[in-house]
Amino acid sequence: MFNMGDMSKMLEGMQENAEKLKADLASKTFSVKTGGGMVELSVNGNGEVIDLTIDDELMSDKDSLQILLIGAINDANKMVQQNQQQSAMGMLGGMGSNPFGGAS
Amino acid sequence: MFNMGDMSKMLEGMQENAEKLKADLASKTFSVKTGGGMVELSVNGNGEVIDLTIDDELMSDKDSLQILLIGAINDANKMVQQNQQQSAMGMLGGMGSNPFGGAS
Repeated sequence: MFNMGDMSKMLEGMQENAEKLKADLASKTFSVKTGGGMVELSVNGNGEVIDLTIDDELMSDKDSLQILLIGAINDANKMVQQNQQQSAMGMLGGMGSNPFGGAS
Repeated sequence: MFNMGDMSKMLEGMQENAEKLKADLASKTFSVKTGGGMVELSVNGNGEVIDLTIDDELMSDKDSLQILLIGAINDANKMVQQNQQQSAMGMLGGMGSNPFGGAS
């Protein structure tokens, strides 16, 4: 059986966990390099850019700059998304004794 | 009451919906401009960069370029995240008659 009271508590518990997760992610940093380090991009676990540095050499080669930037942004996004999934899975995995926070 | 069979079906349904959602998001495009259009960044609904264009003027001003790029990446991420949340909410909102796909 499945009733709406359980459902509501479960969703509340999931929301609390999601907020904790977001705070944890904000404290993480991921750095990616493209072009052998000519572009360096650092983001936190929520995907917010913390730092971006571009090598002087790239300032005279816009095509390469654009390509290396796109690569760096996409690589950083992938790392952020993988980490978010792992963190969410870890959250779900740790629910054995008390599945959804308030819903036990 | 809450049994593991319901739970398992519910999680399956949620996973199916999440996959549909991801495919929908891949077909969306968000474009942001910073510096009055000197930097233009287009991403899809999953945050993957589709296009990045940089004005020639910025090639002689690395500090401004870096600042405008960071702004563009963060703006694009915000749009992507807001859209993902809205899409997920829409998905949950549409669950009235058949809450979790297979779990009705």
